[in-house]
Amino acid sequence: MTPTEVKPWTLADGRDELFFVLPGHRCSPVADRRQLPDRTTTQSELRFDRSTEQWVVIAGLRQERTYKPPPDQCPLCPGPTGLTSEVPATDYDVVVFENRFASLSEADGSGSPLPAPVGDDFVSAPSHGRCEVICFSSDHHSSFADLSFPQAQLVVEAWRHRTADLLSRPGIEQVFCFENRGEEIGVTLTHPHGQIFGYPYLTPRTERMLRAARAHRTSHGSNLFADILAQEVAAGSRVVATNNGFTAFVPFAARWPVEVHIYPNRFVHNLLDLDAAELDDFTEIYLDILNRLDRLYPTPLPYMAALHQYSDTDAQREGYFHIEVISTRRSATKLKYLASSESAMEAFISDVVPEDVAAMLRGVEE
Amino acid sequence: MTPTEVKPWTLADGRDELFFVLPGHRCSPVADRRQLPDRTTTQSELRFDRSTEQWVVIAGLRQERTYKPPPDQCPLCPGPTGLTSEVPATDYDVVVFENRFASLSEADGSGSPLPAPVGDDFVSAPSHGRCEVICFSSDHHSSFADLSFPQAQLVVEAWRHRTADLLSRPGIEQVFCFENRGEEIGVTLTHPHGQIFGYPYLTPRTERMLRAARAHRTSHGSNLFADILAQEVAAGSRVVATNNGFTAFVPFAARWPVEVHIYPNRFVHNLLDLDAAELDDFTEIYLDILNRLDRLYPTPLPYMAALHQYSDTDAQREGYFHIEVISTRRSATKLKYLASSESAMEAFISDVVPEDVAAMLRGVEE
Repeated sequence: MTPTEVKPWTLADGRDELFFVLPGHRCSPVADRRQLPDRTTTQSELRFDRSTEQWVVIAGLRQERTYKPPPDQCPLCPGPTGLTSEVPATDYDVVVFENRFASLSEADGSGSPLPAPVGDDFVSAPSHGRCEVICFSSDHHSSFADLSFPQAQLVVEAWRHRTADLLSRPGIEQVFCFENRGEEIGVTLTHPHGQIFGYPYLTPRTERMLRAARAHRTSHGSNLFADILAQEVAAGSRVVATNNGFTAFVPFAARWPVEVHIYPNRFVHNLLDLDAAELDDFTEIYLDILNRLDRLYPTPLPYMAALHQYSDTDAQREGYFHIEVISTRRSATKLKYLASSESAMEAFISDVVPEDVAAMLRGVEE
Repeated sequence: MTPTEVKPWTLADGRDELFFVLPGHRCSPVADRRQLPDRTTTQSELRFDRSTEQWVVIAGLRQERTYKPPPDQCPLCPGPTGLTSEVPATDYDVVVFENRFASLSEADGSGSPLPAPVGDDFVSAPSHGRCEVICFSSDHHSSFADLSFPQAQLVVEAWRHRTADLLSRPGIEQVFCFENRGEEIGVTLTHPHGQIFGYPYLTPRTERMLRAARAHRTSHGSNLFADILAQEVAAGSRVVATNNGFTAFVPFAARWPVEVHIYPNRFVHNLLDLDAAELDDFTEIYLDILNRLDRLYPTPLPYMAALHQYSDTDAQREGYFHIEVISTRRSATKLKYLASSESAMEAFISDVVPEDVAAMLRGVEE
């Protein structure tokens, strides 16, 4: 693999931007000449909910974020004038920049650990962390599933770069690369893009999964997720696709109408641990699954794709890298809503039988 | 308080129905003459997700449930012919019946405890439990906020009746009375109604709250929720309304754009523990809060209302009865969607500052 060229840039309000460049391509950003407001006035807050022992981000500034702009004002399309876009360049391959409407930011300059949430007071902290946007393509009308293999490889390279960088920063506990796709799930920009969060805490679902895995290690002497993967492969009825390095399956107790988990066949913590062949296998199976999802119904599937990555720390050692892709669409025309059982009690009720979804996805014609 | 008349009835497929009758009113149901399919073919399944240690209900039959019927085919309006409605009667005050499309049911006849989710296999169980529908009014175009005080009292009486009955049944761990209101959150029937679930397990959020409360008892010697309530009252900035028996506030670390918690000022486990004056205070403040929510924006607020009730068992002893009302509407025209941070990682990011919502709700004119 040729090392990817990464060109750093700076936006008008001081935010970092990084261009990831395909071999043979050139990258020529221009100055960002927009008048942007000062960022230091927009710090969000973390508040600790003692009734659930979870942090909640209170990000009032996001009420004003860009909301479904017309296509000719898309802030993610190339902006060669330096006056209209978050990407001041005639063109780009893949670009990453700090979110202008960040829920988590380094604006306070600190990387200090969160306060221990003890005592009788209302516990809060500056919402230290990082929120980045990643544009998968300069083509406004493209999608991840449509990317060429080299373009998708470049996105994976960018994810690896950001994971390594953010994990090395003080005060960041978890790096979360994800994509929200589809107006049905509230996406306000249709240009193909994802986001990368550096959280200053372990997210609740990650914490819960790691707790289950530690208990499993104690009782079984093995890794929980490796055991689940082996059992799903042995059962077979929920497996959707496989290649040398990876397996994609609908989990036995799927919560969502469409839910596919993609695991490397070898236990690793994150994208950085994969070798070159495994990275190609990952890119291949991920494109395959997204293509199957888009062909499931007459219109492309709204989905959320979540990379579960871990550090090699005591707390996260049992974490097994994988990607979970979920959709709220439960038929060609109907969405699943998270109503009271799910939203208020976290008790999931699925209308769809996992084996049926797996069979549907296996049956999608290339 | 006059004891409420409760008249039991049976629907064509054997489901239970209960009419709750206001003093002075009469209740005259007719035979349900519909041809309904056999219920024993529709058992759902519980599956245990070992990666999060949670049960998930797989209820494939619900894909076919009634979906936004035209008003003249509403199954919750009175049906004096016995051929069109779930409520075969010329009129009714409040009625409760088993959900025809139940995610949890007693169709298997067992009330045995769930299997211990241990071992290396895929753990599943019949989805034993109970799903009931409660119609708040026979008026299709009404809403809970519009109910007269005696009518709302009757709903509360019905909730108490169902809570006592279901909690006494073998295999039911938690009784959950709730209302989903608004097409924006996926409600498929607009007739004013709620639901009552008898879960065969403690729901994940309840379990988490009880774990936090047990830890608080150990470290502080006091009830966590009583302490939170006292601190919210002392802080004052998030309190929305109070009366003799109850306090309504926006919690310090609210997850939702609109979120109001209503606590009795005295620690009780559930509606059954309240005395007559407290029940009236509860009815009064709940109607007040729902009215404020409906007047917050030009159109009525979509909301979910969740009664957190507990049993006096070892596991649930620290549970403090309260109701949580949440909405996904974040402005007059915009909804909050649960995207990847919330849906995949359970890390909530709110665009709204809790003190601002409390001030808005306090300022709503009667």
